[in-house]
Parts: sequence; structure tokens; C-alpha cells
Amino acid sequence: MAAEMAEQPAVLRRILADGAEPIRAVAERIAARNPRFVLLTGRGTSDNAALYAKYLLEILLGRPCGLTSMSTTTAYGARPDLTDCLVIAVSQSGGSPDLVASTTAARDAGAITLAVTNNPGSPLAAVSEFHIDVLAGPENALPATKTYTAELLALYLLVEALRGGDGAAAAGRLPELAERILDRRDEVRALAGRYRFAERMVITSRGYGYPTAREAALKLMETSYIPALAYSGADLLHGPLAMVDNVSPVIAIVPAGRGGQALRPVLDRLRDRGADLVVVGPAHQAGTASAGFALPTEGVPEELQPILEILPLQRLAYEVTLARGQDPDAPRALAKVTETR
Amino acid sequence: MAAEMAEQPAVLRRILADGAEPIRAVAERIAARNPRFVLLTGRGTSDNAALYAKYLLEILLGRPCGLTSMSTTTAYGARPDLTDCLVIAVSQSGGSPDLVASTTAARDAGAITLAVTNNPGSPLAAVSEFHIDVLAGPENALPATKTYTAELLALYLLVEALRGGDGAAAAGRLPELAERILDRRDEVRALAGRYRFAERMVITSRGYGYPTAREAALKLMETSYIPALAYSGADLLHGPLAMVDNVSPVIAIVPAGRGGQALRPVLDRLRDRGADLVVVGPAHQAGTASAGFALPTEGVPEELQPILEILPLQRLAYEVTLARGQDPDAPRALAKVTETR
Repeated sequence: MAAEMAEQPAVLRRILADGAEPIRAVAERIAARNPRFVLLTGRGTSDNAALYAKYLLEILLGRPCGLTSMSTTTAYGARPDLTDCLVIAVSQSGGSPDLVASTTAARDAGAITLAVTNNPGSPLAAVSEFHIDVLAGPENALPATKTYTAELLALYLLVEALRGGDGAAAAGRLPELAERILDRRDEVRALAGRYRFAERMVITSRGYGYPTAREAALKLMETSYIPALAYSGADLLHGPLAMVDNVSPVIAIVPAGRGGQALRPVLDRLRDRGADLVVVGPAHQAGTASAGFALPTEGVPEELQPILEILPLQRLAYEVTLARGQDPDAPRALAKVTETR
Repeated sequence: MAAEMAEQPAVLRRILADGAEPIRAVAERIAARNPRFVLLTGRGTSDNAALYAKYLLEILLGRPCGLTSMSTTTAYGARPDLTDCLVIAVSQSGGSPDLVASTTAARDAGAITLAVTNNPGSPLAAVSEFHIDVLAGPENALPATKTYTAELLALYLLVEALRGGDGAAAAGRLPELAERILDRRDEVRALAGRYRFAERMVITSRGYGYPTAREAALKLMETSYIPALAYSGADLLHGPLAMVDNVSPVIAIVPAGRGGQALRPVLDRLRDRGADLVVVGPAHQAGTASAGFALPTEGVPEELQPILEILPLQRLAYEVTLARGQDPDAPRALAKVTETR
């Protein structure tokens, strides 16, 4: 896991150098078909990448989107009319049978199908009309790290190309900033000590940062086994806030931009509750919380910040796991390719 | 909360007697416009009702669906083209500003807009082209109970009417079965003792039962403050399963039907992990778990079972809260109408 986290700047560089052109070519062919509605599908980490793409597609491309509930197809045999729909299936391995089955069914139902995977030879790539390779190289650790950030960048380049833009320019600073963040291991290790005995955690954000909150929660759960509940800031106020008291650890991912602004009333409510608030975000926000990680995002638009935000949180999951005497490379009960149907 | 839970059979009867016709009339006018995509919006309990409707719309009506991320509109100003889209906003109070703003924006963007609320005089009802009143009567308790089951039944009748069916016939047995379930208070109280000292909980289901898992988790969190993590069975296997050990309390909602069948491999994995598994579902499933609540569903199709499944789980949240010496009617940090933007 540590080795693959460290590869992320190189993977981002590779996508910008070798992936942008093939992605643009796929985007041009899809754009020519003018999809009106987009459905996104994934499991686990890739589901969080799909959620990120949903924000991009709604905000930047102006297309209504949905995340599929695969069981409607695989368990209940639903066969909606998918004419004019683009169905994007995101999967590191491209191997989960339910994803292959639901993508096959979508293609039969008239959808334009696109697989975004780290394995061009996968069954999912084979059944999809289009394929994007996220070029992350073999991922061996059970907790997915480099494939997540690779999926995010590939999906960003896709959406930018679908609207005729050049995503690679805006993304140019990511590899260097990612390196700077990854170099701050000691800082994250110190933060990890805080959660040595935590029995639960709430992770929140809003807008583009919300997929980061969900992915950070998943990483923490699958490595350290700390139950981590992820909520959008607005949803947190509709009920789950009751569970937060003056000893509850809360991590807030504060995007530099509109998502961060929308999160402000939530942060105020959390402070009122006396929560232990750790912020990953702009220096002034991180500096005024119980603790924080100041995230450098100079010149990076809000929609690309999730690729940076997750880096200290992946590392946090890793360090908390070590601090608890467990092995982040061998989470109990999990297999690398999970076959659900 | 107890009084409003007890009203549920009467509310279901009222909807079947007085609500079915107005719902059919709204459905006929919407069906004439032939919406091709459906977007659903809600917060908290109503978001879980919206998720239930998503399953109905995909499986029974064959329309692709999405749950909206409201911040794309309210924080980022996204203005997707919503021609041919039906946007359904679900809200007990009809008062949350973000819901009103996103529904207004959707109507401006060409969507057919439908509000499903317990308040025909609400701002949300006013800005929507169509309105369905769920007829639950005033709800005063902070944890929503009767408005949830009322929303489910109203949404079921809507979807059935959209496809030209008669939902009221299939739903006819619900009030009587709901009464039988609500009478079993002692059984639920005994089950609640089990969670007196639980520090976390995992709740899982699949298909039509998945919204029940999410709503049960929300009820438990907002009343008892136990962190409750809800996952679809398939998502549970993609990571969070690592967090389940041989003392973890897990509640599984097992629908009598295909969702329950799809959940079987998940139940096997949970048993392998030694989890304390409590089942709400068919008698044979409840009887072979660590403990269970046998749910009577005779003659009720799987898609209507969620209206029954949640009843013992609402009561469980109530009883666990009492057992912990807390007041289910006064959850800390919450207001009945949560205003998020």
C-alpha cells in the first residue's frame, strides 16, 4: 500500500502524457452521439470515483446523472429503455460479475457504454463499446489507492473533453503538488496518533469534496477497522448530527471554493457540539480547527482538488492502522477482486 | 414518537381510502407527458423514501433514475437541461430551502416537477407543478416515522398509477399486517436489550430492502446515538466487511423475494466472520440467526414489504434509546425542520 501510494505522482504524470489523447478520442466519439443522461456504476472505491464524475457531469457538462443500483438489473431483471443514455462503469479490475452483467444489459437496452478500468484486457472492457485505461499499472495492495486517483483524473479528462475543453492544462500542476503532499509523512503520522483509540469517526464534506469523504471513510474502515461514517454536510444536519458529541472525532474535507463555503454552517454546528474537528483544506481552515492538514492547491480548480485531498487521508488510514498494530496490506476478510452478483 | 409510530396503520388506511384517487389523477397527467428520466431529491428520512422510489421506477416502470446531489445546483449553480425529466422532491415539511431552490431550478430547466410532502401549504408544494399529499397528519416527534411509511405508500401508488396499474389492491393488507407488527412491542424490547452497550452497528440489505437498512440506521443514530453504518450487501463485501468481527452487531433486513435471495451470500460471509446477526425477515431466516424478528408478509409483494420492514426497526430505535436512559423525543442537536442550503 505504501509503495502504491508513493507511485501516485508518477501515475498522474503518465495519464497526462499518455492517457489524455486516447481519452479525448473516446470523448469525441461519445460526444458525437450526444448522450442526454448519464448513469454511473461502480463498487467500493470505484463507486466513489463514479460519484466524483457525477458532480463533474452535472456541473461542468450540464447532464442529469444517476448512480445505478445494480441489483435492479442483476436481481430484479429491470430493463429500462436506455436510448440516449451514456452508462459509465468504473472498476479497477474490470472483473466483478455484476458490473459485467449490468453493463451488458445496458448495452442491450440501447445505452452508449463506457468502461473505465485499470485493465484493458478485462471482461468489463470487452463487453463495453468504449474503454478508457487509467494506466495506473498493476495494483497489488488490497486497499485501492493509486487506481482511485487515476480514475479521478481520467474521469476529469473525459468530462472536459466531452465539453470540448482541454483538461490536461488545468491538471498540469497535480503531479508536483501530489509529491509535496506525499512528502509530509511525519505530519500525517502525528495526526494518526490522535485516532489510536478512536472507536468511530465521522467524515464530512460537501460538493466536490464529498466523494473524498466517502473514500477516506472506506480506506479507514478497510485498513484500521474504525467504523467511519461519511456524510455530505447537509445530510449530516438531517439526523446523524445527533450522534456527534464533545468527544466525537470528525474529519472535514474543506474544498477551496464553493463546496468549502457551503460547508461553513456545518463546521460551525460541529464546533458548537464540541466535536474534535480535524480539517483537510486551506491553511486558515486547518489552522483554526482542533488539528489539520493544510492542503496546497495553488492554481488547481476546485473540481480537481479531490485528487489531492485524498492523499493525506490514504496516508492517515495507513498510519492509523500501523499505530494500532495491524497490517494495512492484509485487511481481514477482503479479496482484491470482489465478485458480487 | 411512540404515538406517531402507533398511528401508522391508520395513516396507511387513510392513504388507501383518500389518497389513491388524487395520486392516480396526478400520475395520469404526468404519464401523458411521458417522462424519460426521473431524478429524485430528499434529505434524511425522505432521501431514504426517494431511494425506495428509485427501485420502483427502475424495476416496475423501466425508467432510468438518479438521486440528485443538491449542492450541484445550490452551491455550484449547475443548470442541466431537464427536458423529458421528471423531478420528484420528497419532504415531510416541504420547507428546506435547498429543496425549494433545487426544485425551482429544475422547473426552470424544463423538468416536470412533483413534490411529495406532508404539507400541501408548504413552499415546496407551491413551487412544484404537481403535488401529492401523504396525509400523515401533523408529525411532532423529531424522528420521522409515520411520514416515512406514508411517503413509501404514496410513492408506490404513484409508480403503479404511472404504469396504469392499481396499487391499492396489492397494498390492501398492509394496515392489518402493520397492526400485527406494532403489537409485538415486548419482542422488540427484548431485542433492544442486546444493544444496550453496542458501540456501533452495521445494517445491511439488498434491493428493495436497502432503503430500509438506511432508514433504520438513521433512526438508530438520531435517537440512540449509536453509530450505525448501512450498506447494500454487495457494497459491504467491497471493503467495509473488514470492520465486522466476531463481536460486531449486524442487522440484516431480508426481503421475502429476490432481494433476499441476492443477500444470501452476504449472510453466509457475515456468519463466517462470526458476526452477531439479527434478521428482520421471513420466519426461517429470523429463526436461524443469532436473533430475529419474523416479519409477516403474506400476500404482500416484495416491493411493498419495506413499509412493514421498517416498523420493528423504528420501535427498536425507540426501545434501545429508552434502555440507554435517553429520550427518543428529544434527540440532541436536531430541529424538526432542518434548513440546509
